[in-house]
Amino acid sequence: MPMSQLSAQQIPDFADILAAHHRIDGKIRKTPVISDAELNKLLGCNLWLKCENLQRTGAFKIRGASNAIACLDEAGKPGDVATHSSGNHGAALALAASDNSRGSVIVMPENSVQTKIDAVRRNGGKIVFCPSTQADREKGLAKLVAKGCIPVPPYDHADIICGQGTAVVELSGQCSDLDIILTPVGGGGLISGSALAARQLNPGIAVIGAEPEGAADTAESLARRERVDQFPVDTIADGLRAIVGVLNFEIILNNVDQVVTVTETGIIDAMALMWRYFRMLIEPSSATVIAALYEHPDVFVGKNIGAILSGGNVDVTQLPFQP
Amino acid sequence: MPMSQLSAQQIPDFADILAAHHRIDGKIRKTPVISDAELNKLLGCNLWLKCENLQRTGAFKIRGASNAIACLDEAGKPGDVATHSSGNHGAALALAASDNSRGSVIVMPENSVQTKIDAVRRNGGKIVFCPSTQADREKGLAKLVAKGCIPVPPYDHADIICGQGTAVVELSGQCSDLDIILTPVGGGGLISGSALAARQLNPGIAVIGAEPEGAADTAESLARRERVDQFPVDTIADGLRAIVGVLNFEIILNNVDQVVTVTETGIIDAMALMWRYFRMLIEPSSATVIAALYEHPDVFVGKNIGAILSGGNVDVTQLPFQP
Repeated sequence: MPMSQLSAQQIPDFADILAAHHRIDGKIRKTPVISDAELNKLLGCNLWLKCENLQRTGAFKIRGASNAIACLDEAGKPGDVATHSSGNHGAALALAASDNSRGSVIVMPENSVQTKIDAVRRNGGKIVFCPSTQADREKGLAKLVAKGCIPVPPYDHADIICGQGTAVVELSGQCSDLDIILTPVGGGGLISGSALAARQLNPGIAVIGAEPEGAADTAESLARRERVDQFPVDTIADGLRAIVGVLNFEIILNNVDQVVTVTETGIIDAMALMWRYFRMLIEPSSATVIAALYEHPDVFVGKNIGAILSGGNVDVTQLPFQP
Repeated sequence: MPMSQLSAQQIPDFADILAAHHRIDGKIRKTPVISDAELNKLLGCNLWLKCENLQRTGAFKIRGASNAIACLDEAGKPGDVATHSSGNHGAALALAASDNSRGSVIVMPENSVQTKIDAVRRNGGKIVFCPSTQADREKGLAKLVAKGCIPVPPYDHADIICGQGTAVVELSGQCSDLDIILTPVGGGGLISGSALAARQLNPGIAVIGAEPEGAADTAESLARRERVDQFPVDTIADGLRAIVGVLNFEIILNNVDQVVTVTETGIIDAMALMWRYFRMLIEPSSATVIAALYEHPDVFVGKNIGAILSGGNVDVTQLPFQP
């Protein structure tokens, strides 16, 4: 089926997200939504958790990566893809490329954790190691692009945003009467796609983001109504340390109602709570949405909330709570 | 709603299982069923996993315990309940009792792991410690019964079997065209309830059990067509070390097609596989059903299989595989 192509910095519409959902069908899992009466009582709300921690590669990132690769195929652009990543996007891009018989090269900092390195290799990606500074990561990627690799960024791209928005399309069919969609906020790929989808599915729904205090650049950007591009980052939530993307922030500014911040203690407590209630290990980034519920009762009590658990790639040998 | 009462050693019928499902509604989670195209390709079958590892208390045991407690309520039998358990049944019974404002006392071996002790206490159960022999456990329970506590056994009881069978009632509505229902086999509560439910829902379905080689008393009992009551147990699957119950074996003999055995290596590999594919930690008992698929391809290849992951209560600090 021929589809119109978005430019990288174009704001997608709902049809683009539905097209992405069609493209990635069979490449991603329709992840389950779970709920618990006892937990709802504790938190004072009706919570539906969309379990992207149970997604392929253990995170929602495969949605955007799969869509980006499929769009390259449709546009008739062959060749290896590349990105720099110390985390979930690298493993997801490697797998999405392998799925479509395409090569991938991931620029990874030398100090990346072994499990992330293993995941990229298992998914068929080649790794180029670099020093851990942002400048070295970008230089490493630029070299690959000069050699003909196609760069696929982790969040600041229309095709990625459309892919991430598909989680909310699924969620809307898995539970109904939601008052609030709640997602973590890092680079902004997940919340911008979620907001675009949610607005169309239910104009009355509130879209709220959760951000660690120690990486609250998006909350600050919203307060100033202007994207900040510097923020002193200090949080356990390794998936949320990025500064919000340019296109992402434009979408957030116009479609997200609020970004609340959570404490590090709250994040760790939330990880422990999810383990206790659901025997699920979620990564600290995911835990922000749970921490938000008890750190901001004024916002959430009494509401029907669909929250996205973004991933489960946690180092089991170094849990920050007592299991 | 008045319901007929089963005696402890009466074989339940399908209506009894449906009555149990009605009784425990709101006390258990309808757990999700997950599947993965890539995993199916690897295993050569279409696999649907019923995730009782995401159940309240992290195991299916709450289904039977909740039904047993509700049946006591219906029968007008007040009083604290008691059992001996080093594992999931104790925590489940404590929670089911608390749910219905009833006290519970769990006889636990002194060498029980701390997480199991914590779970019983968190769920409102009192603990009486005893030496770790079977005789001491039974003596401990007998003392409590003499004081007026009502014993609730872990598997060899009609009300427990009916409760455990409700997982298959749910599963049948969550996926269709199953050729095989596959469950772990320990004391036989889960598989006997599952078999009774499956037979009625689809007479053509095969019901197959998975048992560790080091606790294969049920496989041996089936081979002899007579229940063995001694077996030298040696397996990592702590939930499957019990000898099959009397009522359970009678049901299994007439309703289960086959019990296959799996190796310890297979169990550990299956735990690693589930972590890699789904970021789910499952306990060794659960892993037997996955190990069965690749250790017995002649039985499972090409089939549509609904398998029950029985629980997720694993000691995260001592995983037997490299996460």
